[in-house]
Amino acid sequence: MSLLIKGGTVVAPTGPITADVLVDGETIVAIFAPGQAPEGPEVIDATGKYVIPGAVDAHTHMELPFGGTHASDTFDTGTRAAAIGGTTTIIDFAVQRYGEVVQDGLAAWHGKAEGNCHIDYAFHQILGGVDDESLKAMDYLVNNEGITSFKLFMAYPGVFYSDDGQILRAMQKARDNGAMIMMHAENGPAIDVLVKQALERGETDPIHHGLTRPQELEAEATSRAIWLASVAADCPLYIVHLSASKALEQVAEARNRGKNVFAETCPQYLYLTLEDQLGAPGFEGAKWVCSTPLRSKHETHRADLWQGLRTNDLSVVSTDHCPFCFKDQKELGLGDFSKIPNGIGSVEHRVDLLYQGVVDGKLSLGRWVETIATTPARMFGLYPKKGIIAPGSDADIVLYDPNGRTRISVETHHMNMDHSAWEGWEIDGRVDTVLSRGEVIASGGEYTGRAGRGRYLKRGLSDYLI
Amino acid sequence: MSLLIKGGTVVAPTGPITADVLVDGETIVAIFAPGQAPEGPEVIDATGKYVIPGAVDAHTHMELPFGGTHASDTFDTGTRAAAIGGTTTIIDFAVQRYGEVVQDGLAAWHGKAEGNCHIDYAFHQILGGVDDESLKAMDYLVNNEGITSFKLFMAYPGVFYSDDGQILRAMQKARDNGAMIMMHAENGPAIDVLVKQALERGETDPIHHGLTRPQELEAEATSRAIWLASVAADCPLYIVHLSASKALEQVAEARNRGKNVFAETCPQYLYLTLEDQLGAPGFEGAKWVCSTPLRSKHETHRADLWQGLRTNDLSVVSTDHCPFCFKDQKELGLGDFSKIPNGIGSVEHRVDLLYQGVVDGKLSLGRWVETIATTPARMFGLYPKKGIIAPGSDADIVLYDPNGRTRISVETHHMNMDHSAWEGWEIDGRVDTVLSRGEVIASGGEYTGRAGRGRYLKRGLSDYLI
Amino acid sequence: MSLLIKGGTVVAPTGPITADVLVDGETIVAIFAPGQAPEGPEVIDATGKYVIPGAVDAHTHMELPFGGTHASDTFDTGTRAAAIGGTTTIIDFAVQRYGEVVQDGLAAWHGKAEGNCHIDYAFHQILGGVDDESLKAMDYLVNNEGITSFKLFMAYPGVFYSDDGQILRAMQKARDNGAMIMMHAENGPAIDVLVKQALERGETDPIHHGLTRPQELEAEATSRAIWLASVAADCPLYIVHLSASKALEQVAEARNRGKNVFAETCPQYLYLTLEDQLGAPGFEGAKWVCSTPLRSKHETHRADLWQGLRTNDLSVVSTDHCPFCFKDQKELGLGDFSKIPNGIGSVEHRVDLLYQGVVDGKLSLGRWVETIATTPARMFGLYPKKGIIAPGSDADIVLYDPNGRTRISVETHHMNMDHSAWEGWEIDGRVDTVLSRGEVIASGGEYTGRAGRGRYLKRGLSDYLI
Amino acid sequence: MSLLIKGGTVVAPTGPITADVLVDGETIVAIFAPGQAPEGPEVIDATGKYVIPGAVDAHTHMELPFGGTHASDTFDTGTRAAAIGGTTTIIDFAVQRYGEVVQDGLAAWHGKAEGNCHIDYAFHQILGGVDDESLKAMDYLVNNEGITSFKLFMAYPGVFYSDDGQILRAMQKARDNGAMIMMHAENGPAIDVLVKQALERGETDPIHHGLTRPQELEAEATSRAIWLASVAADCPLYIVHLSASKALEQVAEARNRGKNVFAETCPQYLYLTLEDQLGAPGFEGAKWVCSTPLRSKHETHRADLWQGLRTNDLSVVSTDHCPFCFKDQKELGLGDFSKIPNGIGSVEHRVDLLYQGVVDGKLSLGRWVETIATTPARMFGLYPKKGIIAPGSDADIVLYDPNGRTRISVETHHMNMDHSAWEGWEIDGRVDTVLSRGEVIASGGEYTGRAGRGRYLKRGLSDYLI
Ligand SMILES: [Zn+2]
Ligand SMILES: [Zn+2]
Ligand SMILES: [Zn+2]
Ligand SMILES: [Zn+2]
Ligand SMILES: [Zn+2]
Ligand SMILES: [Zn+2]
Ligand SMILES: [Zn+2]
Ligand SMILES: [Zn+2]
Repeated sequence: MSLLIKGGTVVAPTGPITADVLVDGETIVAIFAPGQAPEGPEVIDATGKYVIPGAVDAHTHMELPFGGTHASDTFDTGTRAAAIGGTTTIIDFAVQRYGEVVQDGLAAWHGKAEGNCHIDYAFHQILGGVDDESLKAMDYLVNNEGITSFKLFMAYPGVFYSDDGQILRAMQKARDNGAMIMMHAENGPAIDVLVKQALERGETDPIHHGLTRPQELEAEATSRAIWLASVAADCPLYIVHLSASKALEQVAEARNRGKNVFAETCPQYLYLTLEDQLGAPGFEGAKWVCSTPLRSKHETHRADLWQGLRTNDLSVVSTDHCPFCFKDQKELGLGDFSKIPNGIGSVEHRVDLLYQGVVDGKLSLGRWVETIATTPARMFGLYPKKGIIAPGSDADIVLYDPNGRTRISVETHHMNMDHSAWEGWEIDGRVDTVLSRGEVIASGGEYTGRAGRGRYLKRGLSDYLI
Repeated sequence: MSLLIKGGTVVAPTGPITADVLVDGETIVAIFAPGQAPEGPEVIDATGKYVIPGAVDAHTHMELPFGGTHASDTFDTGTRAAAIGGTTTIIDFAVQRYGEVVQDGLAAWHGKAEGNCHIDYAFHQILGGVDDESLKAMDYLVNNEGITSFKLFMAYPGVFYSDDGQILRAMQKARDNGAMIMMHAENGPAIDVLVKQALERGETDPIHHGLTRPQELEAEATSRAIWLASVAADCPLYIVHLSASKALEQVAEARNRGKNVFAETCPQYLYLTLEDQLGAPGFEGAKWVCSTPLRSKHETHRADLWQGLRTNDLSVVSTDHCPFCFKDQKELGLGDFSKIPNGIGSVEHRVDLLYQGVVDGKLSLGRWVETIATTPARMFGLYPKKGIIAPGSDADIVLYDPNGRTRISVETHHMNMDHSAWEGWEIDGRVDTVLSRGEVIASGGEYTGRAGRGRYLKRGLSDYLI
Repeated sequence: MSLLIKGGTVVAPTGPITADVLVDGETIVAIFAPGQAPEGPEVIDATGKYVIPGAVDAHTHMELPFGGTHASDTFDTGTRAAAIGGTTTIIDFAVQRYGEVVQDGLAAWHGKAEGNCHIDYAFHQILGGVDDESLKAMDYLVNNEGITSFKLFMAYPGVFYSDDGQILRAMQKARDNGAMIMMHAENGPAIDVLVKQALERGETDPIHHGLTRPQELEAEATSRAIWLASVAADCPLYIVHLSASKALEQVAEARNRGKNVFAETCPQYLYLTLEDQLGAPGFEGAKWVCSTPLRSKHETHRADLWQGLRTNDLSVVSTDHCPFCFKDQKELGLGDFSKIPNGIGSVEHRVDLLYQGVVDGKLSLGRWVETIATTPARMFGLYPKKGIIAPGSDADIVLYDPNGRTRISVETHHMNMDHSAWEGWEIDGRVDTVLSRGEVIASGGEYTGRAGRGRYLKRGLSDYLI
Repeated sequence: MSLLIKGGTVVAPTGPITADVLVDGETIVAIFAPGQAPEGPEVIDATGKYVIPGAVDAHTHMELPFGGTHASDTFDTGTRAAAIGGTTTIIDFAVQRYGEVVQDGLAAWHGKAEGNCHIDYAFHQILGGVDDESLKAMDYLVNNEGITSFKLFMAYPGVFYSDDGQILRAMQKARDNGAMIMMHAENGPAIDVLVKQALERGETDPIHHGLTRPQELEAEATSRAIWLASVAADCPLYIVHLSASKALEQVAEARNRGKNVFAETCPQYLYLTLEDQLGAPGFEGAKWVCSTPLRSKHETHRADLWQGLRTNDLSVVSTDHCPFCFKDQKELGLGDFSKIPNGIGSVEHRVDLLYQGVVDGKLSLGRWVETIATTPARMFGLYPKKGIIAPGSDADIVLYDPNGRTRISVETHHMNMDHSAWEGWEIDGRVDTVLSRGEVIASGGEYTGRAGRGRYLKRGLSDYLI
């Protein structure tokens, strides 16, 4: 069946044009200059709307086990919320725990996701232990499973932590097989010292989660990962959830030297702060405990991150969606901030929150689309199937209404959380209509998709050349 | 009349896709997924070819008066050569000389171009003297003439030179009216001292043109222009013909701080050197006398410039096409390098020379298109009319054959020069077919365009947001 | 006659030691470990005092003609005030005006100084016009007159301004004859535009003197001077009165690359600000009109300058002493800030003001002595005659009492000014006793020196190797 | 008994003066201007000689156990060789091994040294394991044992390695008690991966010792140590045996920001290279196996290090004297470079090798003395007792003959080694006479000192303020 999206402003990374988009079945089959499209097909009137590629969230954690509990969104609830917010692809993280076989971890994640997703999904693989076996598994996943990116941790000793020798080995392997190394860059052993000292001093409130993770320890780990990548024959490297000015400096400096070093940031780091959110009175701040942590408003982090998005020193905005309810989950850390499950849920709000940056003059329209859709798709081997409005691409399309308005609240959101990290925020824009592979799954506030319609995406290699 | 370019690989800055391009009259009316285009129209088989936007050369000097002679290409010969080489738009420089009325200079250039161009053309305006009158003229040209960029010179005292106060005033004006300031960034007063001293020492050969323009004096002027732009409320700035590593560092550093500072380089700086070309025996080197000069092969300029193109610290590749014949023109400087007319002619070869960078692994396909077509169009207010394959855009299209081969020689080139700066160079690729506003003007080596078909383009403001 | 300074703490740049200093006639003849000095000579008890070399002020302007008036201190009044404040050598600036013969300018300055100085004095030579004649004069002064440093101006077009070609020529000459180039680094042509625009807008108050000289134009000129010096075969370069963070960055960056680039700052930049002093209500701010100007307290200038003194990116603290009375002199600029004579008088207070930095933990004792005495002496060819407590050196010695206290006021100062730029400032320390060539000229608040006892010092070349 | 060193050129960091030095007993009691010293005492004629403070070698390893053998110099043979070469103080490293009590390690080192040294000596303490006990021991050693500096290792996992948490804790402790943290900055875990891989590929020759320790892994660890120090409230940090350009950049950058970060280099890094020495044919290169390793001559390390000494980004030159004989010791690594004991012996040659830098125009005389004597003494709490020619200082004095000549050879050296790392090197200068605490122990090639005359020096805190 044929569908014409007519009269809208189609936004590509290089800028907007006025054009009509013809969808047939699951695919975009043509793009027309105004007035050039054939008569006949069903029409969606996009007049006054931006027509953008469905957004790609390259960093989510549905149902992630963490600290004795699980992220509260299932693949069902989480992908539904994503879809409603204009995100039509997620890349979640399959987890290998230390001692596990990598493929078993992956299989478990397929088990969680299969039949439950509302939108298409893919996986990165977390390596919880780099050894001869898991190095072999890297090749296998790249060649057979469509998994071409592997996440390592410089934090969480005893849980996910890889030492520098392990990191180097994984990077060498990635260099050989074309995969991307993703890095959680915080110096875990040093942080653990600071956490222990803080607790010994009786500093147990949520804000101490941030104070014991100073930006220097994010910058250090970021810098170290870059050095190790250079030793691994310039293995490409992707820093996840970059939050701090000094960490950004490390990435920018490497990119300046032509290195294939990339970074993402997340909406929380662009808007929220250590003092105003994490430092909220009493235990309230627990809602904003995530790692890397929110940074101080007295420093220049937020302005620097917005600038990094403009200069492309930050390539991608993901959510690191990892929701926990306040009750029973965040509350596990009452009296001990180190026991608060780490994570914020934003998978539903990224498209809106970044559009606010356009309204505020911080990003161009093209750059908005690029950071939330095109680049994540290119970075992780989904382009041009995803991330662009182009003939032949999947018809994952969002009509975005610049004259709409979005108010975020736990009352209205669709994520499985008992609170919102963004309670009361208002955005000058609104997701109007969402198509996933040609199907209208959300329109005018009504959701018409369903669990199970989303498909697993085998990914290709990153189109990472700087 | 309708024309389908079928089966090719359409290259956008974000990467290639397989698609068919439908042209109607002068315009691209649709782009189709393979097999989706309507039957009927005339077809050009693009199988195995790259389908790219006609290239935009943002820096040419047809018929420029210089040192008692004129650049040897007229708008007729020069735009014809450009077209054959895959360039379908040039932006030439109208000249205001010191003491002249700006509008008179512009009128003179319209006089030279009108009725003579084979492809579409636009103008930047050179300001040879910044004063109250010319500042007013800047507003007039922006508002009425479609001229939105103004070039100033930090070199050539007594000819085009503006002092720093004048530069500051022009930048303030540009900041107000949205124009772009283009800068020839070399410290002229210091260079003139070195030139005089060299001549006094009897150093008269062409290589001394380069030796008396050390990269430090390009870097200094580049840095100074950036400082002045910051004083002018961060007026956007575009450095022309950047040739040297240290100058590139200045631009990169400013861009890192989020400044709207841009630079172009030219093919000669990517491939040719002080020693091998400018230092050719006898007077031969005169062929490669241009300013900024070719740089030493013993330094890292060429590698740094290629890297700058990758990292986007260099945004554009133009030619600074300014051809002079060896006989009678370059020979004016026999016995005194400072009298050699400055300029190299490459308007015909830029698309090929940069494609060689793709073959050599220095640029991605997308970046090739971006630096020679998309970004110059966006930078100078011609997008999306020019610089992109998109519905509604002008049907300026090049079919590029990666399996072809191009040999450059004075025997075969179409520029009005009695020599080639690139004599004997061979490229692993070839311009196959060129369309300008829907008309096939070159195909399979045969040229079918004609003088006068090119139109003057009034430009909009730069889409310069970093 | 023999004099023993006994029991004090002798401070050298590398740190303090307890030692006795034996003076015979005009010279230090020995330094003894405690208890080792011979009996007999007259003794000054220095117990509890710092024994430091008489300070060297490398930047003063006695009787300087400026804007239709003269600096209010003569060599008599100015050197007397200096002596009382612990400074036993000044290097003043002889002036060649444009069109004058350099030697005539120098002779005029000898005329002003001779027979009038209370302490030893030397001259730098200002070149108001670089041409063949003045370049020859540079050699003559270095070889015959003991003048080994030449000051150029990038500001004040039409008065002292040298263009970049002239600067380059003077630097080449200095490179050959071993002289030091001193630079007033502000972009005069750009500043003049801003000044004219401000006055046209009716912005006439003193604070606009600062606002029309933004730090970017100091940083730019500093950077440019460094580039030009590198073109002049790495001619050594000394930036005078550096006031701004961004200018300091330029110097630091050059020094990092091993360049012989040096800078001084002045007490006013370490303590005073655009808002609090230059922006004083009404015309009061005129007292603090100097160039480079005081900088904003909302930026990090002062902290950065103190840090620069610690890291040796700033080598010297001079005063740029150039006093004008408020009445009749500063008042020349009522209604037009650009007519206010530029200058602040601090020659009497530098030793105290910098000692406050020691008390505040910003400088070590050794670094205090180094920046106010040893380095200026080494930098300008007076070492080891001046600038160090060493056998064979001139007995220019200051006993400084860390338990004393100094209150600065027009009521008590000795400079010929009707106000003080430091009115009411209190210092935790006090100049106790001052010897100039073995003669006690100030002690316990009583002054016993006399005009005419100071001698002209022919200087050697700079000991400038980084 | 009284001794006058007469007619020499006394060199201080700020430059040379002509002066006579009077020694009484073990101490310098006075310094006189020429002709001012009393008659009577025994005279050493220093005419034509430099009179410099006895050099201080802040990094030696006498009798160090390593890889199943011991460094071949005892405190007897090593300090004798040092003395002959103009070094009158060493600071050796007492070792705590993992599991040992710190004080026991220290006691063992006292046992080795006591009664055996020819010159004065002090200790740093190596911490092989940071835990609650050793942190307490740090306080004890600072307060009671005159040990104010502690060395940690980022390399040698399982031997001396501290993880980042341990390093942070030791730095916090040092910040509190005023001690200096010294760091062996190489990323051991990553190096161990490279070593294992090289050996698996059959790359067993000595040069692979260098190739498996790329400069990036030194730079990374240097950078990380700096970050960790900043987290530890800007604990002062001293990087030992810095060998590589990129590591130097890290130090320079930190110092630029005003951090108390210091580094030493060693003569081997200033002169010797990966290719020419470590890559000598067959197993010969084993002589130059040390960590950090010699660096490539095709990179700019040596020039950068010399420049770092000039700019004070490198503060100290030590030897890291750790000699092993070729036979039986170096040979332990035949067929496996990783088993070659790490170390080069140069304690006898540092004064000469650095003086060659003066002759070559790379260092000033003052800087020579500062880097080999004054700064190490100030850095490690021995100043002004050591490191300076000043009244009250120990009479550790070297007369250095600039007209002498030194040829280095195993035939003539005094270290207990069967080869020389410097075989055949010739120096344009010569140690003429050496005094240790007033006693002439070497003169004109004859050695008259004796084991046991050297005393243990309790050190004060570092005079580390940048
Ligand atoms: Zn993470
Ligand atoms: Zn995550
Ligand atoms: Zn130009
Ligand atoms: Zn040009
Ligand atoms: Zn000045
Ligand atoms: Zn001055
Ligand atoms: Zn070591
Ligand atoms: Zn060692």
